[in-house]
Amino acid sequence: MKVDGKDMRPIWFDTASKTVQIIDQRLLPHELIIKDLTSVDEVIGAIKDMYVRGAPLIGATGALGVYISLVQKNNRGTDNEYLELECNRLKDARPTAMNLFWGVDRVRDVVLKEVSYDARVKAALTQALEVVEEEAVNCQKIGEYGLPIIEEISRQKNGKAVNILTHCNAGWLACVEYGTATAPIYTAFDNHIDVHVWVDETRPLNQGSRLTAWELGKHGIDHTVITDNAGGHLMQHGMVDVVIVGTDRTTRAGDVANKIGTYLKALAARDNNIPFYVALPSSTFDWSITDGIKDIPIEERDPDEIRYVQGLLNDKIQSVLVPPETSPAANHAFDVTPARLVTGFITERGICKATQEDIMALFPDKKI
Amino acid sequence: MKVDGKDMRPIWFDTASKTVQIIDQRLLPHELIIKDLTSVDEVIGAIKDMYVRGAPLIGATGALGVYISLVQKNNRGTDNEYLELECNRLKDARPTAMNLFWGVDRVRDVVLKEVSYDARVKAALTQALEVVEEEAVNCQKIGEYGLPIIEEISRQKNGKAVNILTHCNAGWLACVEYGTATAPIYTAFDNHIDVHVWVDETRPLNQGSRLTAWELGKHGIDHTVITDNAGGHLMQHGMVDVVIVGTDRTTRAGDVANKIGTYLKALAARDNNIPFYVALPSSTFDWSITDGIKDIPIEERDPDEIRYVQGLLNDKIQSVLVPPETSPAANHAFDVTPARLVTGFITERGICKATQEDIMALFPDKKI
Repeated sequence: MKVDGKDMRPIWFDTASKTVQIIDQRLLPHELIIKDLTSVDEVIGAIKDMYVRGAPLIGATGALGVYISLVQKNNRGTDNEYLELECNRLKDARPTAMNLFWGVDRVRDVVLKEVSYDARVKAALTQALEVVEEEAVNCQKIGEYGLPIIEEISRQKNGKAVNILTHCNAGWLACVEYGTATAPIYTAFDNHIDVHVWVDETRPLNQGSRLTAWELGKHGIDHTVITDNAGGHLMQHGMVDVVIVGTDRTTRAGDVANKIGTYLKALAARDNNIPFYVALPSSTFDWSITDGIKDIPIEERDPDEIRYVQGLLNDKIQSVLVPPETSPAANHAFDVTPARLVTGFITERGICKATQEDIMALFPDKKI
Repeated sequence: MKVDGKDMRPIWFDTASKTVQIIDQRLLPHELIIKDLTSVDEVIGAIKDMYVRGAPLIGATGALGVYISLVQKNNRGTDNEYLELECNRLKDARPTAMNLFWGVDRVRDVVLKEVSYDARVKAALTQALEVVEEEAVNCQKIGEYGLPIIEEISRQKNGKAVNILTHCNAGWLACVEYGTATAPIYTAFDNHIDVHVWVDETRPLNQGSRLTAWELGKHGIDHTVITDNAGGHLMQHGMVDVVIVGTDRTTRAGDVANKIGTYLKALAARDNNIPFYVALPSSTFDWSITDGIKDIPIEERDPDEIRYVQGLLNDKIQSVLVPPETSPAANHAFDVTPARLVTGFITERGICKATQEDIMALFPDKKI
C-alpha cells in the first residue's frame, strides 16, 4: 500500500542485495526503520519481539525464514536433520499463529524434494515468494468479498459514513497488502464509499493506535482512536455499524483466537445486534481442531509489556512505567471468541457462517 | 487506610492550618503530593483535572467546596445569590457523578438556614465534615455487607484464594475510607480470607494500575495488573470468581454508570455465569431516573488523555505520545451497564437485586 505516495510492504526480498527486508514495526508510527534478516536467529527475534506481527505476515516471514536457513552463515543446506531443526525453531517463535506453521511447512516440503544445494535454495526462495504473493492476492480477494457488506450498510444509511470498529492491527502491516480486517475498508474507500473507522488502541502493545491508525491515516481514511474500553458504549449509542477483526487461528468449527479483548467486542456486538465479522485467509484456519477455548494455546508474554508504555517524548521513542514498581502484571496475548458470537467469515473464497458445516462447504478440499 | 504504616485519607480538614487538604492523585503511584484547596476555582480544578476523583470523594470534595466558598478571598458569604452561583459552578465541575450534586446541595441547604456569616461558616464546615464521615461509615458498612459474598466463595473453594476482578479505582482513594468495590475486599483480607485481585488498568487514565494497585499493595493485598482487554479471557478459564465495581451514578431501576469499559466486563461475567456486583453508598443513586442509557449524560474528556500516557521515566513523571500525531481520538469517560447484567448492589443498608422493586424496598425513605 502507499506510504507518502510510495508503494510499501512490511516484508520483501531485495533483489539487488539478495536480502529479506522488513519494517521494524516496533517503532511505528514515530519511526519507519528497515531491517535486514540474514539468519534464522534474526528471523526468530523479529517474530518474537514483534518487529513483524500479524498472522499472515508471520506466515510469510516464516516461509522466507526457511530460505534464510539455507543461505545463512554456516548453513548445512543439504542436511535434512538441520533443516527440520531450523524449521522447528522457526515454528516455536510464537505459539498461537497458525500461519507460521503453515508457511514454514510449505517451504520445507518443497525443499525436501530437492537434493542439490542450489536447487534447494532456488526452490525455497520461489516457494516463499509464492507464499508472500498468495497472501497479497488473498487479502485483495477478502477486500472484494467484504465490500458488499459495507456497500449495503452505506445504502441503508443513504451514503452517510459507515462506522466500522476494528481491534488490533489486521491491516497491511499484519499481512502483505490490503490487510484482512482492513481489506474491505480499503476496498470500500477506494470505491468512494464514505467510511469511518473506530480504532481500538489495543493494549498492551497498542497495535491499533500505533499501526492501524498510521496505516489508515497514510491512506487518507477517516478514523478515530478509542480505548479498548469504549466499544460497548459506542455500540449502545448506535455509533458502530459493523465490527471487522482479524484472527491468529480459527478452528474448523469457527472459534476465533485473536488479540486479547476481541471476545469482549464480540459480546458487545451481540448485545447490540451489530454484525461481527472475522476476515481471514484460509491459511489461518486450523483444520485439526474444533474447540478454540480448550485447544488453542494462549501465549503469555512479558508483563513489562503492560507495565511500560512506549511512545514519543522529546523526539525519541521512550517508555514510561505506569503501575507501582512492585505490582505484578499478567499478559495473556490472545483470547478466543466462540463461533456463536461470529456473524460470518470473510475469506479469499467468499463469506461463510461460523459453523463447521458452512466452513467446510467453502473449503471442501481441506483435510480434517 | 494505612500508607506505609500511617493513617491516610484522600481528603481532610487540617485543624492547625484550617485548610482543606487533598492527595494529588494524578501523580500516584510515583509521587505522594498533598495540596491545599483554598478557593472554589481550586476545588473545581481539582475535580475537573482529577486531583480527586471517584464518586464518593467528589461528593465529599463538593461538600467541603461549599465551605471553601464561604471562607475564600473576596467571598460574599451572606449573599444567597453568590452562594447559589458558587454551588452551581461546583456542581458543573463534572457531569456524571451523582454524589457531587448531592454533597453540594446538602451543605448549601444547611447554610441557607443560617443568617449570620459566622453561623454559615460553622454550619458549612460541620455539615461537610459530616458528609465526609458518613462516606467513611457507609464504606465500612459496604465492606461488612459484602464480606459474606467473598466468605461464601472462599468456603466453596476450600480456602483457596478468591479471585476478584475490579475495574478502575473504587477504593479508598475514590472515597474516604475502605472504598466501595474494595470495601468487601479489605474486610475479607482483614478477616484472614485469602484474596487475589485482578486489577484492570483502566485506560485512558489508568486509575486501576496507578491507584488500585497502589492501594492494594500498600495494604499488603495480593493483586495482578491486567489490561482492560483481559477480563473476558480470564473469566472463560475460571480465573475470576466474582466481579465487584463501583459506580458514578445508578438509576433507581438499577442501570449503572461507571468508568468506561465496565459494561464489557458485565457482559463477560454474564456470558460465563460469574456474579457481577456493584458496591455503592446510596448517595450514588439518582432516584429521579430509570433509564441509564437514555438519561445519564456521559462526559467526553480531552482526547489527549488517550493519546498521551503518563508514567515514570528517569525518576520524573512524564508523558509519551502513542498514536500518530495526526490521528484524532475520542474519550468517552463512562458507560452504562444495564440492570439486567448486575447480580446485586452492595450498599450501606445491605444487598439488593438490581430491580426498582428491590432497590426501593431497601430505601423506602428516598423520594422518587
